[in-house]
Amino acid sequence: MSRPEFQLIDWIRGQIRDRAPVTLGIGDDAACLRPPVDREMLVAIDMLMEGVHFTFPPATPQLAGRKALAVNLSDIAAMAGRPTAAFVSVALPKSRGMDFAKEVHAGLIELANEHNVIVAGGDTNSWNGPLVISVTVVGEPLGLHPVCREGARPGDWLFVTGALGGSLPSGRHLTFPPRLGEVEQLASCVDLHAMLDISDGLAADLHHLLNAGRVGALIEADQIPLTETAIYAADGKAPLMHGLSDGEDFELLFAVSPDDGRLLLSDWRNNTPVHKIGEISEVLGARIRYSDGRIEPLPPLGWTHSLGSGQ
Amino acid sequence: MSRPEFQLIDWIRGQIRDRAPVTLGIGDDAACLRPPVDREMLVAIDMLMEGVHFTFPPATPQLAGRKALAVNLSDIAAMAGRPTAAFVSVALPKSRGMDFAKEVHAGLIELANEHNVIVAGGDTNSWNGPLVISVTVVGEPLGLHPVCREGARPGDWLFVTGALGGSLPSGRHLTFPPRLGEVEQLASCVDLHAMLDISDGLAADLHHLLNAGRVGALIEADQIPLTETAIYAADGKAPLMHGLSDGEDFELLFAVSPDDGRLLLSDWRNNTPVHKIGEISEVLGARIRYSDGRIEPLPPLGWTHSLGSGQ
Repeated sequence: MSRPEFQLIDWIRGQIRDRAPVTLGIGDDAACLRPPVDREMLVAIDMLMEGVHFTFPPATPQLAGRKALAVNLSDIAAMAGRPTAAFVSVALPKSRGMDFAKEVHAGLIELANEHNVIVAGGDTNSWNGPLVISVTVVGEPLGLHPVCREGARPGDWLFVTGALGGSLPSGRHLTFPPRLGEVEQLASCVDLHAMLDISDGLAADLHHLLNAGRVGALIEADQIPLTETAIYAADGKAPLMHGLSDGEDFELLFAVSPDDGRLLLSDWRNNTPVHKIGEISEVLGARIRYSDGRIEPLPPLGWTHSLGSGQ
Repeated sequence: MSRPEFQLIDWIRGQIRDRAPVTLGIGDDAACLRPPVDREMLVAIDMLMEGVHFTFPPATPQLAGRKALAVNLSDIAAMAGRPTAAFVSVALPKSRGMDFAKEVHAGLIELANEHNVIVAGGDTNSWNGPLVISVTVVGEPLGLHPVCREGARPGDWLFVTGALGGSLPSGRHLTFPPRLGEVEQLASCVDLHAMLDISDGLAADLHHLLNAGRVGALIEADQIPLTETAIYAADGKAPLMHGLSDGEDFELLFAVSPDDGRLLLSDWRNNTPVHKIGEISEVLGARIRYSDGRIEPLPPLGWTHSLGSGQ
């Protein structure tokens, strides 16, 4: 390892607060964590590549680092979990120098600190290629067990957090807040039957949830919450199609019992709204009901970006 | 995510045996592990890039995948640990297609199966760049606590496993066996005071161990075990220099009490030899004694490849 890389590692180490449950942080061959007692451990991993998951501009080095952590925090939120530690491996473009490397890590560490996540280890490399960041996040379930993609039952109500569509043109895919606080509140007031984060687009990820649970769903077209970017997009694609098929929303899609659903509709207090978008059916497959009453099959659509994002 | 990538993930999933302690493997937003009881958890992470840590040829896709896991297993061995699960993120070159992607994973999974490591999660991406693989390995200490870089005491004897030098020209950096079995045997018969795996070269990594423990060492030049590649290298560099400064040996360097050292010299039975190469001193810094009795300072030398390898 070259001197500049040791300097970078020392700098990163200086930014980190070593705290429980990390008993040995950056600087040895591996990190040590004190695992949760009587709980399973969650592990999420995601790799982002320059030119694929972000480009400079509009991304800055800070936002690239931030996004690399945020997509993993979103995965932990989607399991109804609390993240504890992050591990960061990077391939840094040699031409961009040390300040660039620090900015990437600064963006990541700032978000980590917001959520009490400790950067406990990493691997710093440089090359003549573009920036690549791979982040692994370790966490634990908020309840006794994590909430999986499977588990939705016929009759369950389907909800999404926030609003959908237009994440790429609006830049939200770089700045989105992982729904960790929201899921903590949800897990404390309702029994989450099944959940995932919407990264491939609502229609595609709905199919993932339905396939995992071997159930179907009927979605209400006029109940899908849309972002302003989706509503005012002047690209010839209908706002609803943006909401159904745009990728990288990083909102939560989840199923709860009708009783819990009613509770959410009446009592949910949070800056992030939750919207009921449909119901789980015994009939397999996804269907969508338009405002004129027409019901049609809803194909996975999805962001078939041929690039893949996530486990 | 595109169809080919879902197919690849299905194929990978078919290669994996889902076993305890993995309670939820590939296919959800995060994996779930049952953590060790009353033990800390170890986490190692390493990223390998085509053109930096391997090139095609002499590497094959299988060997690249194998190495990406092996360097992490070596890190876990260096903590006196047992690996349990691996998480793999890849940036696959689009031009090379699905067979290439399968071969990378097949090489990795074959080594994982050899060591009872479960591939429990991953992130599969493709792009127009070269192959990048980042692997995170989770494990647990063999004893109650891991063995760190710090902990060497004045008077301790220093040992290395195997032989050093010439790993890159010999191709051993692609095929080396992580010293997991050796460390299990070591941990069962001696008290390991400090340990690391030699990735930057003996001299450089010796300095890491000495700096961590705030001690010094005197190394015996004629006791350093050299590979045949180091001995017969016809590149104008002395065999000893290869042993001291070549990178990517992935052998273990460790310190034990003189009593335990004597035990190893008399009783060690394993296909992999261990050699005493020197002793820990109170005097700071590393020194080397040549066969003619001369003692000189031993600088870090090391494989200043400006590329970095590992935590």
